[in-house]
Amino acid sequence: MTIDHAARRARLAAALPAHEVPALLVTSPVNVRYLTGLVSSNAAVLVRADGSALLATDNRYIDKTRALDVPAVEAPDVAGRLAAPGVGIEAAAMTVATFRRLEAGLKEGDGKGGGLVPLGPLVEELRAVKDEAELELIRTACALTDQAFADVLPMIAPGLTERALARLLDNRMTELGADKPAFDTIVAAGEHGAIPHHAPTDRELRAGDLVTMDFGARYHGYHADMTRTVCLGAPAAWQRDLYDLVRRAQRAGRHALTPGALAKDVDAAARGLIEAAGHGEHFRHGLGHGVGLEIHEDPFLGPSRTGRLEDRVPITVEPGIYLPERGGVRIEDTLVTREGGPELFTKTTKELLVL
Amino acid sequence: MTIDHAARRARLAAALPAHEVPALLVTSPVNVRYLTGLVSSNAAVLVRADGSALLATDNRYIDKTRALDVPAVEAPDVAGRLAAPGVGIEAAAMTVATFRRLEAGLKEGDGKGGGLVPLGPLVEELRAVKDEAELELIRTACALTDQAFADVLPMIAPGLTERALARLLDNRMTELGADKPAFDTIVAAGEHGAIPHHAPTDRELRAGDLVTMDFGARYHGYHADMTRTVCLGAPAAWQRDLYDLVRRAQRAGRHALTPGALAKDVDAAARGLIEAAGHGEHFRHGLGHGVGLEIHEDPFLGPSRTGRLEDRVPITVEPGIYLPERGGVRIEDTLVTREGGPELFTKTTKELLVL
Repeated sequence: MTIDHAARRARLAAALPAHEVPALLVTSPVNVRYLTGLVSSNAAVLVRADGSALLATDNRYIDKTRALDVPAVEAPDVAGRLAAPGVGIEAAAMTVATFRRLEAGLKEGDGKGGGLVPLGPLVEELRAVKDEAELELIRTACALTDQAFADVLPMIAPGLTERALARLLDNRMTELGADKPAFDTIVAAGEHGAIPHHAPTDRELRAGDLVTMDFGARYHGYHADMTRTVCLGAPAAWQRDLYDLVRRAQRAGRHALTPGALAKDVDAAARGLIEAAGHGEHFRHGLGHGVGLEIHEDPFLGPSRTGRLEDRVPITVEPGIYLPERGGVRIEDTLVTREGGPELFTKTTKELLVL
Repeated sequence: MTIDHAARRARLAAALPAHEVPALLVTSPVNVRYLTGLVSSNAAVLVRADGSALLATDNRYIDKTRALDVPAVEAPDVAGRLAAPGVGIEAAAMTVATFRRLEAGLKEGDGKGGGLVPLGPLVEELRAVKDEAELELIRTACALTDQAFADVLPMIAPGLTERALARLLDNRMTELGADKPAFDTIVAAGEHGAIPHHAPTDRELRAGDLVTMDFGARYHGYHADMTRTVCLGAPAAWQRDLYDLVRRAQRAGRHALTPGALAKDVDAAARGLIEAAGHGEHFRHGLGHGVGLEIHEDPFLGPSRTGRLEDRVPITVEPGIYLPERGGVRIEDTLVTREGGPELFTKTTKELLVL
């Protein structure tokens, strides 16, 4: 399956008249990649309302543009090369410093000060709904993640440190073909499990620990995201109860994930169970987030999120309960919305694994 | 050696009157870390001209602020919580979208529209000159990098892929105690060496290849950066000549690295030798860059860079020559400027290693 970048640019072009701009100057690196296929740290693309486009990048990347379906110019100042009076810019991607520099340049150029027009996340909105080529890459990223977990599972034992376990997962993912880890891997043992974004330390795993691993592979730029909590030795009653509750909440969230559903209703489907069990205050983050060329992207699932899900939106469902100084449980899958019910990309069991 | 964050904030405060602002709203995550010690993905700190400060972060990180020497408030919208009429903002760190949102909020709040004042890289300028505690961390990061190279060197042989070699270096650095690799490791074999920023592929190393490795460890947030080119089997005459030229240019660059030197003169010291040998067009990047909490930070060495070096500035010296379709050589050390001559942090030999 190949990616049709021209079709993406055409969809963007079709959205421009509503914003009354003749073109959009795209400067977010991931959006430039999405619209042209160019992977670089310094590029911009101007997409015009008629669907035509011009790419700019510097001498490090210009050779790579020859294989693309869009004309390109070499310039060290990529945004400056493409800026023009009245053109829209990505307000969430451009810094105030760049904006002021470009505006000053245009003023100098035409003598009358042609303003740039700050616009919202137009490309991000297009990116939320994936085509099948993208879904295949995310499916593969998730399969690599599952496989790495299966391969590392036999090595999880008392005495291993959080850092060493994170390294085993990261190495296995890259050995299996990942570009790199999709984000900084979280390994949180025992009391550290109470911290949702815990960074791995030299704490050793011990019998009786719940151990939470949150990790994922990046594959051809696309991200997987998965969390499992396992137990070292037979779980105490509170550990099993906590796990069962999170597991039921996660299932409820997955089942609510249908095209047309409100983002906050999906969140509520899982959160309601946790609140009913008296743990509402111990689940302080959103239920999930879109994944794609970024690890966190539109749409987001949370109590105050507006908007409805569409078809073909890859997204995580990841409720967690965090008990201060005791520990926590989180279960996270990556799925994609489908008309007939979500397709599960993360295949690892959600049974409590007792090691 | 401990880091004195209050002294850093005092230095920033002393710089504010010249910019006619009562306070600076610092939103760059690395600058927030520099001024307070808080490592997070969502925090801001307001530093006032009297040296007092207020930190804001969200519920994920608020517990970590208790160990810091600055008062903190919990707020999901960290910049919005601290913004006030007439306050300076970091124009190179804040997006146009955030700037407009904050300005609109202030207008609503005080009814008269208190503008924020976009300012230049004030904190970045402070960060360029390091204290001894920071230099010790960079020294350690460079030592880990040297050690990883020494440990991996015996494994470099025909048949190993670029990706596998990059993984060996990355794994060894983290095993030795690095936080993580300082950046995406470059391994470029044979003809790939002609691409300065080559991303590792499944190409296998072959006898006769020059192999360039550009990598580094991050340690307690501080970055090391090192490049070596080795030869698999006896080098051809052109390979040895190219290597010797880059090595002489690298030495000339290091020797020019003194406090008070113009950034462009340091660049010229190395570039002049390469140009005199007829390879000026094959060295198309700057000679080096500062390192610290970021892998690329002020100052930069290049033909059009203004400004002079100061004392205690860690910086790379990394000339390279890239011959299209044939290959390339780059040699890079991390050093720090000192009054008595630079201190070399990268200890690996610069002799051509023939494997």
